[in-house]
Amino acid sequence: MLGRLYEGQDCSAARTLELVGERWSLLILRDAMFRHSTRFGQFQTSLGVAPNVLAARLEGFEAAGLMKRRVRKGSGEPPEYVLTRKGMELKPVIMALTQWGDKWVRRGPVEYIDGRDRRPVSLQLRRAADDAPVPVDDVVVRKR
Amino acid sequence: MLGRLYEGQDCSAARTLELVGERWSLLILRDAMFRHSTRFGQFQTSLGVAPNVLAARLEGFEAAGLMKRRVRKGSGEPPEYVLTRKGMELKPVIMALTQWGDKWVRRGPVEYIDGRDRRPVSLQLRRAADDAPVPVDDVVVRKR
Repeated sequence: MLGRLYEGQDCSAARTLELVGERWSLLILRDAMFRHSTRFGQFQTSLGVAPNVLAARLEGFEAAGLMKRRVRKGSGEPPEYVLTRKGMELKPVIMALTQWGDKWVRRGPVEYIDGRDRRPVSLQLRRAADDAPVPVDDVVVRKR
Repeated sequence: MLGRLYEGQDCSAARTLELVGERWSLLILRDAMFRHSTRFGQFQTSLGVAPNVLAARLEGFEAAGLMKRRVRKGSGEPPEYVLTRKGMELKPVIMALTQWGDKWVRRGPVEYIDGRDRRPVSLQLRRAADDAPVPVDDVVVRKR
């Protein structure tokens, strides 16, 4: 299914959704990013997703280069699915969803912090050359 | 369909996906945010989405308070679907998807700017109290 969601849309947001827009995709990535899930069983327990769907998503993520599948030979352990840099850099997508849900639906149970100094981190709209956040209303697009 | 995607997930990202996680939802919102689409026909032409799906999404957005339906009485014109503040504040979700796709899939045709001064705007990870962007790797979660 990956890569066939939104044909004909010349848009980077649409292309990203081709890779992560299927049902459960973003929550699987959330678990990998922030709950350190790496094994099939961990994702399954956390999400309660149907095993065939989970298997398809993990396979798709591997094919798209978002995760790497690791098997420790001879260990008898199940494979691990580990985020690549490409996958890890989807963190802001999850954070944008969280920040909106915290504000507009219900405050959730976690906050984002810098793991090194434990200070809160948020996603902000910024101009390249200055430090004042830009109000969401002011953001428009132009052709490159 | 809205509100039944991810039951049992106590997570603001999941709750946001309940409202905007169905196929086509985010691209409909993208068109409303950045292409100024307001009418059924405009969304349909831009997206090529099946009319029944589009109708269900617009109705769902109205029910969720993301859009308001406006009819000019006696004008004979079709209704307009206009983003509320709640809907407009999903812009960072679209921008996060775009920034990732620009970097990791293919550079898309548009860039985000501040409509007032035409300067580029980007989404950045920031600590509340300082101005240095935080590397994506350093972001973790903690319980509130």
